[in-house]
Amino acid sequence: MTEKKHSDEVYREAQDVIPGGVSRNTIFRTPYPNYAHRASGCYITDIDGTRRLDFANNMAALIHGHAFKPIVDAVIRQLKRGTAYTLASEIEVAYAEHLISRSPSFERIRFMNSGTEAVMAMIKASRAFTGRPKIAKAEGAYHGTYDFAEVSQTANPSNWGTRENPESVPLAHGTPTSVTKDVVIFPFNDIERTLNILDKHAGEIACVIIDPVPHRVGLMPGKPEFIEAIYNWTRRHGALLVFDEVVTFRVNYGGAQENYSIRPDLTAMGKIIGGGFPVGAVAGRADVMRVFDPHEKNLLLPYSGTFSANPITMTAGYQAMIHYDRESVKKLNELAAHARRQVEEVIGQLDLPMSVTGAGSMFRIHLRPNPPECYREAYQDEKAKKVLNLLLDHMYYKEKILLINTLTCMLSTVMGQKEIDRLSEAFYKTFRKYKKEIEELNSKKIGGNG
Amino acid sequence: MTEKKHSDEVYREAQDVIPGGVSRNTIFRTPYPNYAHRASGCYITDIDGTRRLDFANNMAALIHGHAFKPIVDAVIRQLKRGTAYTLASEIEVAYAEHLISRSPSFERIRFMNSGTEAVMAMIKASRAFTGRPKIAKAEGAYHGTYDFAEVSQTANPSNWGTRENPESVPLAHGTPTSVTKDVVIFPFNDIERTLNILDKHAGEIACVIIDPVPHRVGLMPGKPEFIEAIYNWTRRHGALLVFDEVVTFRVNYGGAQENYSIRPDLTAMGKIIGGGFPVGAVAGRADVMRVFDPHEKNLLLPYSGTFSANPITMTAGYQAMIHYDRESVKKLNELAAHARRQVEEVIGQLDLPMSVTGAGSMFRIHLRPNPPECYREAYQDEKAKKVLNLLLDHMYYKEKILLINTLTCMLSTVMGQKEIDRLSEAFYKTFRKYKKEIEELNSKKIGGNG
Repeated sequence: MTEKKHSDEVYREAQDVIPGGVSRNTIFRTPYPNYAHRASGCYITDIDGTRRLDFANNMAALIHGHAFKPIVDAVIRQLKRGTAYTLASEIEVAYAEHLISRSPSFERIRFMNSGTEAVMAMIKASRAFTGRPKIAKAEGAYHGTYDFAEVSQTANPSNWGTRENPESVPLAHGTPTSVTKDVVIFPFNDIERTLNILDKHAGEIACVIIDPVPHRVGLMPGKPEFIEAIYNWTRRHGALLVFDEVVTFRVNYGGAQENYSIRPDLTAMGKIIGGGFPVGAVAGRADVMRVFDPHEKNLLLPYSGTFSANPITMTAGYQAMIHYDRESVKKLNELAAHARRQVEEVIGQLDLPMSVTGAGSMFRIHLRPNPPECYREAYQDEKAKKVLNLLLDHMYYKEKILLINTLTCMLSTVMGQKEIDRLSEAFYKTFRKYKKEIEELNSKKIGGNG
Repeated sequence: MTEKKHSDEVYREAQDVIPGGVSRNTIFRTPYPNYAHRASGCYITDIDGTRRLDFANNMAALIHGHAFKPIVDAVIRQLKRGTAYTLASEIEVAYAEHLISRSPSFERIRFMNSGTEAVMAMIKASRAFTGRPKIAKAEGAYHGTYDFAEVSQTANPSNWGTRENPESVPLAHGTPTSVTKDVVIFPFNDIERTLNILDKHAGEIACVIIDPVPHRVGLMPGKPEFIEAIYNWTRRHGALLVFDEVVTFRVNYGGAQENYSIRPDLTAMGKIIGGGFPVGAVAGRADVMRVFDPHEKNLLLPYSGTFSANPITMTAGYQAMIHYDRESVKKLNELAAHARRQVEEVIGQLDLPMSVTGAGSMFRIHLRPNPPECYREAYQDEKAKKVLNLLLDHMYYKEKILLINTLTCMLSTVMGQKEIDRLSEAFYKTFRKYKKEIEELNSKKIGGNG
């Protein structure tokens, strides 16, 4: 390994050993992805010498940007004492206590290694508690790579069926048909259709899983009346309401759930609570969480994990979250609200048919004049994707700003007005350059993405 | 958090926030687990001041023991440059090249965050490549927490059915019946019965998954003729043969698969390849691994992961594995062979009805005179478990040696003859103390664990 190579050379080597050259499709980029050399705060420099402003923050996982000093210092101290034991560690308990204090719905918590593992454990816990096989999820919602959780994640007009009866569309080739049969799909934020669909499977549904601000659905917040209607349905039918807050926990001090009057029975977390290290967690009602308790004579859900609650992740996560206190959350959300207004001004100034959705410290830009209300409205066809990639490439290569590949920004606490100004100026230049292409998408609305 | 507390106090607090007080059932211990203060090399000291010799090595995950200097130094350098980016990193490519060079069956590799994720991805890749829904696995084998992979992991005499037709027994309460229907169970190392069982599902089986030295089955190596027979069956029936080497990769430079003439199509890894950090990987045939390649127009298995291939895990894993070279593997395996002989001598001196199984740097002690040949022979009933716990507790509390809770030792390269002598002396004292209890187990063999 030498630092002297260029990214295209490294990528050529990568393709000989890694399928497609990447371990994560989210970092895939044609003709080649760039390789990071170092990152600090909200800036990341690749091995080719380009420094970019980072609004992706490792897919929303870094709330304080890169190499946050309190995390680096605490992790170095722990590193010298070991990274993983076949014993417990105190920091796990301290961190559990801290996280539980952040939300009234968190009575007990248990740690895993990723958001995927957290959602899988949450679904298995729901089945173990209720003894039922089915789960219900929103069309288009991303909940990690557990196959039950990924049904209909990328459903498209050729296979998604009617709004009244959305099809359960497998994501991966070869998914057992039994998997899709055990997953009920509903349209996000559509109370009437959703309740009708759920009613057909009442008595079989272990849990309804909700991402309260689902990124891939369109990053629009769940309407309070929608969330409450589902909550009430689960109370009537002995099911659990479980939240996937892997991405959205950043939205408030106690997660996006703070915006609703109801309390989810369980919540899956990940991303920012790892402080930059692999993490997952499930928190919720003590009586439900008891399915994990090894003291139980009849243990309903045996569960372990070699690296779960390892002291490095716990140390980094603890530092990240104690520094993301109420004050810090408020400040970041205000900055994000301001950034979103600036972006909306840019759209207005250029008179573009675009819109913005989001919550807390995250927002997403859509290539349509009105914010989408569901996955089918947010869905982008091939033509829209082409324009999207023009915009993303311009932002990345010309403006040197790293975004999530849906035109989504995830802010971090180390950003200030300077970075927001740079972002909105970059959007201004980028949108102006591709004004025609953006407008054309919406002029032929019937076949377009409207 | 204060370092002044005792483990029982910390555990009382832990139970108020974590179900049962632990995030991993493998570290659970009554009346309470001890909390680690610091660990270095093969010694681990808890917050109560007790220093133990560590033969568990975080459930086999640490090949160089704790706080291995080359890992600590390299990780500190990377830490200051960031722990996770929405870009690629060079160390991922360098590490992929290194791992691929270790086994001829590894043509391509892709990284995940845990052994559970690696096995899940391997099963999904097998389904995506073959378009088939079923998997076949050995009764009793542990392959992580993906529900398909954990079927029959703890099957017992009340539910395991006949040897000719082992039942698919769900591990977790509420497992959908469709999951157990898509998992075919066979008896490890039993060629005739296994082939008869597989034949019944030929054409539906995506992969046969084999841990070549399955810990929970009894840690006996797969017989070459058994592995070859399954390999040949998969060639005849269009299925894949996939290895779970999450634990066993330590057995040889290129994993336990080096001991066989055949090459698995895919291999899942984890544990030691993370250098003490959360890790998983799938490696294997280039044409099969293409299911992950985002260049493909018709991408069969979309897959991502926020922390997959993060540069900290890659850096630590790379250091761990380049220091686990052929020379180091050979030396460790010789030490382990020696340790095993010393333990067998102890058993002989005390004239005990006990036996030892294992391979490479790992061995397991059984409370029966002949080494078990399959899961049903290794299975321990309540009486046997009670004696097992007496032995484990004596080793832990009196002899101050940490073992895996099946009486299994996982050696690390930082151990020497001194530690092996201490281990065998401790076993001598422990077995002598409980000689009567061990003998009694075997005297009433009909109802016992024989």
